[in-house]
Amino acid sequence: MPSKPLILIANDDGIHAPGLAALVRSASQLGDVFVVAPDKGQSGMGHAITINSTLRVEQLHLFGEAITAYSCSGTPVDCVKMAINKLLPRRPDLCISGINHGANHSINVIYSGTMSAAMEGAIEGVPSIGFSLLDYQQEADFRTAEKIATTICTDILQKGLPKGVCLNVNIPKGEPGIVKGIKVCRQSRGTWIEELDERTDPSGRKYYWLTGRFQDFEPDATDTDVYALANQYASVVPVQFDLTAHAHLPALQHLEQLP
Amino acid sequence: MPSKPLILIANDDGIHAPGLAALVRSASQLGDVFVVAPDKGQSGMGHAITINSTLRVEQLHLFGEAITAYSCSGTPVDCVKMAINKLLPRRPDLCISGINHGANHSINVIYSGTMSAAMEGAIEGVPSIGFSLLDYQQEADFRTAEKIATTICTDILQKGLPKGVCLNVNIPKGEPGIVKGIKVCRQSRGTWIEELDERTDPSGRKYYWLTGRFQDFEPDATDTDVYALANQYASVVPVQFDLTAHAHLPALQHLEQLP
Repeated sequence: MPSKPLILIANDDGIHAPGLAALVRSASQLGDVFVVAPDKGQSGMGHAITINSTLRVEQLHLFGEAITAYSCSGTPVDCVKMAINKLLPRRPDLCISGINHGANHSINVIYSGTMSAAMEGAIEGVPSIGFSLLDYQQEADFRTAEKIATTICTDILQKGLPKGVCLNVNIPKGEPGIVKGIKVCRQSRGTWIEELDERTDPSGRKYYWLTGRFQDFEPDATDTDVYALANQYASVVPVQFDLTAHAHLPALQHLEQLP
Repeated sequence: MPSKPLILIANDDGIHAPGLAALVRSASQLGDVFVVAPDKGQSGMGHAITINSTLRVEQLHLFGEAITAYSCSGTPVDCVKMAINKLLPRRPDLCISGINHGANHSINVIYSGTMSAAMEGAIEGVPSIGFSLLDYQQEADFRTAEKIATTICTDILQKGLPKGVCLNVNIPKGEPGIVKGIKVCRQSRGTWIEELDERTDPSGRKYYWLTGRFQDFEPDATDTDVYALANQYASVVPVQFDLTAHAHLPALQHLEQLP
């Protein structure tokens, strides 16, 4: 590894999000930072990629002379693909995403553009981490999240991550001092209780807003990300992109006997 | 369960795709079919949901009087949410997605709108299956895929699926008779070797097309979906949405000791 690590930063809230600036501040202490982020908010984009339309990038000078930054017209995953395959001078030593404005715990990992950017980094073989703060506000206090990001990135730059695994880090909201520490945990079982908010447009046609509330299915578990966060710990979940439910392979063998 | 099962069908190629019509034909033999599919192609949308804009639906009469069908302006996952939470008369007994025009084996499961629709069904607690045919052509021969879909759906309607698991079914292309049978297998390790095809628009500005080729990392493995398909078997992979890399939790415990 060259003397200074090369750190790729992406996000899903877009290149102008305060959480991205916080992660840039955090990572700048650790190496050379290179930003490729969506040119607009891309929350809820999951692992979407742009197949049927084109991509554009634009170099911007948002973070001072030392930091190369591009906005990209695509999704968070497109940003990572574009960075690693086109824009970066060499393979990055670390790929980080965020800091997301809002939680990505439990089942949210699957809808999250922030985590998809981190997963794409991991698919590319780069140690990767997604960071999210449990505060949707634009004016959220990112100081604690920044500090935790620096701590975890320092460790992962030294020790790396197991192959096929990235980290999903969520940080409780609040002022410095409120977070008690870090808990390594598993994704809680939970889901969104959806409501489709039905409205009528000025021409009399119906339209819908997707809305809902998160429900945790394991309120008594103490080894989940939901529990850690509720108890003022930052949660770290190792996330894999082998989605095979290995434990259930034997129970499905009968399908091979079907006519 | 009422006498006839209620079967929800979604896809990512859009409501007018031949593969959707094939799955409607297949499922119509087994129960009451209800279609909610995107109003346009949504390939590569992964698990994207529509948060920052509105959703619209339109009832269409594409599949005869017996089948209710809606197009939806959103993603494949939006279609399933809209169906289960708004449009369906009751909870479906089965949620199926496809038949996708093109492979969704190996790492493609993560980019696939087809599989995301199936995963969303499973997150909602409905037995769910995604079907894909290894043929991108509009005029692909779906007869074998239709037959396999009927066989597998019949079995799953009877026996259900383990909680937290859906099925990713891929079917080799070709005429009836070419497929040897069904293999229950795991997702192969593989990735896309990306290329960003750089072009110049009429005003002299650069733009890019995302392109690439799939590379299998396990050419010698015989228990993967890639192997099954290469040997003319339909592959069935049980897919989970708990993304926790449980095996790696112990190795990360040191993060809890960080200052």
